[in-house]
Amino acid sequence: MLDLILIGIGTGNPDHLTRQAMKALNSADLILIPYKGSEKADLAALRRDICDEVLAAPVPIKEFVLPVRDPKIADYITRVNAWHDAIAECWLEAISSHGGATRVALLVWGDPSLYDSTLRIADRVQNTRLVRLEVIPGITSMQALTAAHRIALNALGRPFTVTTGRQLRDHGWPDGAERLVVMLDGDSAFQTLDPTGIDIWWGGFVGMANEIIRSGALADVSQDIIDTRARAKDEHGWIMDIYILNRAQ
Amino acid sequence: MLDLILIGIGTGNPDHLTRQAMKALNSADLILIPYKGSEKADLAALRRDICDEVLAAPVPIKEFVLPVRDPKIADYITRVNAWHDAIAECWLEAISSHGGATRVALLVWGDPSLYDSTLRIADRVQNTRLVRLEVIPGITSMQALTAAHRIALNALGRPFTVTTGRQLRDHGWPDGAERLVVMLDGDSAFQTLDPTGIDIWWGGFVGMANEIIRSGALADVSQDIIDTRARAKDEHGWIMDIYILNRAQ
Repeated sequence: MLDLILIGIGTGNPDHLTRQAMKALNSADLILIPYKGSEKADLAALRRDICDEVLAAPVPIKEFVLPVRDPKIADYITRVNAWHDAIAECWLEAISSHGGATRVALLVWGDPSLYDSTLRIADRVQNTRLVRLEVIPGITSMQALTAAHRIALNALGRPFTVTTGRQLRDHGWPDGAERLVVMLDGDSAFQTLDPTGIDIWWGGFVGMANEIIRSGALADVSQDIIDTRARAKDEHGWIMDIYILNRAQ
Repeated sequence: MLDLILIGIGTGNPDHLTRQAMKALNSADLILIPYKGSEKADLAALRRDICDEVLAAPVPIKEFVLPVRDPKIADYITRVNAWHDAIAECWLEAISSHGGATRVALLVWGDPSLYDSTLRIADRVQNTRLVRLEVIPGITSMQALTAAHRIALNALGRPFTVTTGRQLRDHGWPDGAERLVVMLDGDSAFQTLDPTGIDIWWGGFVGMANEIIRSGALADVSQDIIDTRARAKDEHGWIMDIYILNRAQ
């Protein structure tokens, strides 16, 4: 029996770690850390820093090179599924290279439930080995964004919709939605909307020391956000950002 | 200048506390805890337990009796706004009864951004006093629910909508939505839906020692959830629950 522990670590602030996450990390006998290539090296480094800081006794840490998505697979869902298969292979390889490991921890950016593939990859591992899966919730970028802006996610008693940049770009503003949280948006899909009546609360590197936030009427701040994002991405080699859009009803 | 620190404490598991929350609590010179009446006394007790456990040195804790919503105000939004005004008065009274307090912490169930009134009440206090507001994100019940079921909030690359029991009961399944997270539902509003093609993942007391979860086709498990919820509410005098609904497209 293999224990797989998916640990939400929050959005890059080591102080986002919960007591539950710290206990789980200390209970592991192997920690797997994905290495995504040099431009995102500081993400792997941050995971190592977190381990250094909270481990009471050393636990073996195994870095594995994360496969990339195969651009030859045209369909998005098929491409992502093949990629998850490949990552599951990497996990299994890394675990068997540490033969005695029975309690393996994976540090998940944000929370394992939210636009993250770790749970889907763990499902694939369960097809190969007998696995007991444990999920430790973590602070999400939605919460780091609202904390930075000191705003609520929802208007009083009202619903909101969480979606992706790809969805917004390909399908426009969702029917019936009043407020959107947009994640996984590499191309600032808010540019594709008619900005009339829309307010935005944007953040890059939310929760981290280099957090940047902007807010206002989309028509007024859209270009500033695009420029700020491009500059920050140049400076750091990567960026993670997220935003909330509210459309007057 | 008054520092108001709204601290998300997660969903009742003291191990949901983040390092950031623990530091913020220890930096306060007054902690306000709402007392909601005997049937929810264990919520106030839990907040006190958390303080006992994480405070390195004693900090004064002031309990205040939370006003109730005025049933004579028929309109829901007007009623809630009047209630928030009354709570802001209570905060101000409690703070001035501890004249020297300049750094006041409030422990917020879950996260301050999600269907919680603390940010709106803090806005009212800002109308009366010069306030510097700080928000510390916490684990939400959405994340405690998905961790308990070991599921993702979103289908791969797909949006989801977060709403309330009241919205679902009054307006039915939202147009265009595939997956719903339903919060603040005292009446199991899923009963009002045609269950065909709908799956549910339900949890009561998620994240706590007495967590209960159920999942399955809504048509199959609806009655079991209603009965389980009623029994648990009888036993504890209160219940907080949350669920995800997914409708086949």
